[in-house]
Amino acid sequence: MLDFVNKSWANTVTLFNIVFGSLSLVSTLHEDYQAAAIFILLAVVMDGLDGRIARKLGIISDMGKELDSLCDLVSFGVAPAILLYAQVLYSFPYSLGLIAAVFYIMCGAFRLARFNVLNISGYFVGLPITLAGAFLVPVSWFAYDLPDYLIMAAMVFFSTMMVSNLKIRKY
Amino acid sequence: MLDFVNKSWANTVTLFNIVFGSLSLVSTLHEDYQAAAIFILLAVVMDGLDGRIARKLGIISDMGKELDSLCDLVSFGVAPAILLYAQVLYSFPYSLGLIAAVFYIMCGAFRLARFNVLNISGYFVGLPITLAGAFLVPVSWFAYDLPDYLIMAAMVFFSTMMVSNLKIRKY
Repeated sequence: MLDFVNKSWANTVTLFNIVFGSLSLVSTLHEDYQAAAIFILLAVVMDGLDGRIARKLGIISDMGKELDSLCDLVSFGVAPAILLYAQVLYSFPYSLGLIAAVFYIMCGAFRLARFNVLNISGYFVGLPITLAGAFLVPVSWFAYDLPDYLIMAAMVFFSTMMVSNLKIRKY
Repeated sequence: MLDFVNKSWANTVTLFNIVFGSLSLVSTLHEDYQAAAIFILLAVVMDGLDGRIARKLGIISDMGKELDSLCDLVSFGVAPAILLYAQVLYSFPYSLGLIAAVFYIMCGAFRLARFNVLNISGYFVGLPITLAGAFLVPVSWFAYDLPDYLIMAAMVFFSTMMVSNLKIRKY
């Protein structure tokens, strides 16, 4: 019973991750881009917490891992891509901005699926999607001060880093 | 090499699923709700195809399964919830519509995570998220002819059906 409650704890925190990711999307819909970016940051905090809680309580579960990936894709894949699309990328000619946003989401999904199957511990392969999402928050904040092509470059850079074979040590 | 090409084939079709899911979200952003619903339907078609291709070629892979779940959450969880929020649910008092949309996404993620861990074949536990997403397409089409509370009821109904213990035979 206590085990169940503990597991539910970690999963509840994980679900808060996707709640903030969803709220980011809704904020983007309402053209409140600052709120959308803050919700992504809150999801980053939740994502840091759930892993810590699970490890501390010794309740790392397969279900927790699956749920974590699913929530990560929404909060750090879909939410920042749609946010930057709504802010800047929509204005590129030939739907190039749309392609960049969708490419980012695809790479995020691919990275999460690959990492779950590789089942490596100790280091990450490819830039973690949480980091990519977190890096895109300041990009969103300064979206109107930065030249458009730099935002596009950031999207393409983070997309390719996620699916790269880059190894990053876990701390 | 041929094996790799075959696997890539199924995964490419799966990635088309998330491409259509992302395009649905972008269409919602542009207030083109009819296109948003059609993109969800196209994602349903892709989701039916990739499993068929994988089974026919005998290339069901763990990575394919993970990728499938991730894409399903975007196309049949996030996309229809945001679409119906933008069409009707936003207008509910006390953010009730927002809560219903986020609840639907949470239930979708929970269902996918649980099903991946249970690893059951032969039947589904809980309404598959693809079906929930597909059912919400006509709801979106007739969103302005239906009373608002019925749309809210449909969201809550499909959410709870996804996390229920209902067993549905696979065909």
